Amino acid sequence: METVKNRRSIRKYADRTVDDNLLNRLLEVSERTQTMGNLQLYSVVVTRSAEMKERLAPAHFNQPMVRQAPVVLTVCADFNRTVKWAEQRKAQPGYDNFLSFMNAATDALLYTQTFCNLAEAEGLGVCYLGTTLYQPLQIIDILKLPRLVMPVATLTVGWPDEHPEQTDRLPLKAMVHDETYCDYTPEAIDGYFGPKEQLPVNKRFVEINRKETLAQIFTDIRYTKKDNEAMSTGMLDALKRQGFLD
Amino acid sequence: METVKNRRSIRKYADRTVDDNLLNRLLEVSERTQTMGNLQLYSVVVTRSAEMKERLAPAHFNQPMVRQAPVVLTVCADFNRTVKWAEQRKAQPGYDNFLSFMNAATDALLYTQTFCNLAEAEGLGVCYLGTTLYQPLQIIDILKLPRLVMPVATLTVGWPDEHPEQTDRLPLKAMVHDETYCDYTPEAIDGYFGPKEQLPVNKRFVEINRKETLAQIFTDIRYTKKDNEAMSTGMLDALKRQGFLD
Repeated sequence: METVKNRRSIRKYADRTVDDNLLNRLLEVSERTQTMGNLQLYSVVVTRSAEMKERLAPAHFNQPMVRQAPVVLTVCADFNRTVKWAEQRKAQPGYDNFLSFMNAATDALLYTQTFCNLAEAEGLGVCYLGTTLYQPLQIIDILKLPRLVMPVATLTVGWPDEHPEQTDRLPLKAMVHDETYCDYTPEAIDGYFGPKEQLPVNKRFVEINRKETLAQIFTDIRYTKKDNEAMSTGMLDALKRQGFLD
Repeated sequence: METVKNRRSIRKYADRTVDDNLLNRLLEVSERTQTMGNLQLYSVVVTRSAEMKERLAPAHFNQPMVRQAPVVLTVCADFNRTVKWAEQRKAQPGYDNFLSFMNAATDALLYTQTFCNLAEAEGLGVCYLGTTLYQPLQIIDILKLPRLVMPVATLTVGWPDEHPEQTDRLPLKAMVHDETYCDYTPEAIDGYFGPKEQLPVNKRFVEINRKETLAQIFTDIRYTKKDNEAMSTGMLDALKRQGFLD
């Protein structure tokens, strides 16, 4: 509990290798995470070579962690292994559909998070790259992912070389609903988001970007409608190419 | 690490309440999980009342844990709160698309898994219900989830009243790929799945179900093509109704 309470994402890593034995132990113990029908519908591609990091970096919008971290993990929703097994055992698989993608993505993401929890408990720093979903076709090509394999999460992993401030979080009552979903009144929104908007770091952020409100930073700069729509198309295309959508 | 190494999913719970303070502490500390742009794109609906469990049970194919567990958590991908905030702050949100759903689902699933790991470290037992994705429209109606909120994970939570055998897992080398994806040869499949097929519990399972292979249990009984395709349609319909797909 204490490790999680004190965690922060780490984007700067010491010039120190992550031992193979430690990494493999973390990857292996994470396999205890619950999984659909015990099928373990995920795979992990481990990137350590400078050459592969160089190739992956543009797919992640050149975030510097990709080149700087000793280890990059790309966790994939994977029905390829299970389907190959079924076909080799006189079984007729029906996993080339959207539900199966969601099942495998769920397995992959739960596994990813156990890995994060365990790695941080060992003192490692990780950063989760949301960019994995932005240009999946590039990642598919670079990592040579076959049909029915789709990248869903990327982690950079290394020993921390920074100790950033912890970021704020919304109060628990903003996140939790009792028995049924209680939709947010304007007053509730003000109450929950007000403290975030008042943080000096966020006020400065709004000022630097010459915006009127913090929310505009998200809608106009970080996650715009135009980008989201283009990347939605890209992701649906990738799901089609990987055989998870008609 | 030890908690995760020894974990098992718990489907039978003692007749003992889960203290509100403990539950809230776990839900709150889990908020430290990394999240896209610190937007926390998830919500949790907490079910404690017998009446609501009764209503949820059929949506989960009447798995007995839903009625028996003291607490049921439905974790939702949630862009509703963020969009309401943006609209209240002169910002124009563009989150009614597939990428935004995947981003919010990712936030929700990572949060869910941190919760699982923390709850188990406190001695609680949890069971992850994959059925959440099977009939999401039912769950949406029962929990009154508004537009841009989609259920993605359900956990039953309580104090364990069983100590089941740990299930097997594939060897690490079956899950991990070095630099690029190395596709599975027939020999590799035999090597990785052989030990699983030889387990007495799995051999008995094949026998009872009058099947020829373990893989057929999955393709013919547990996760059939027909069911997967019907439920894919249901899930895509739900995403449309919730505003995440055209």
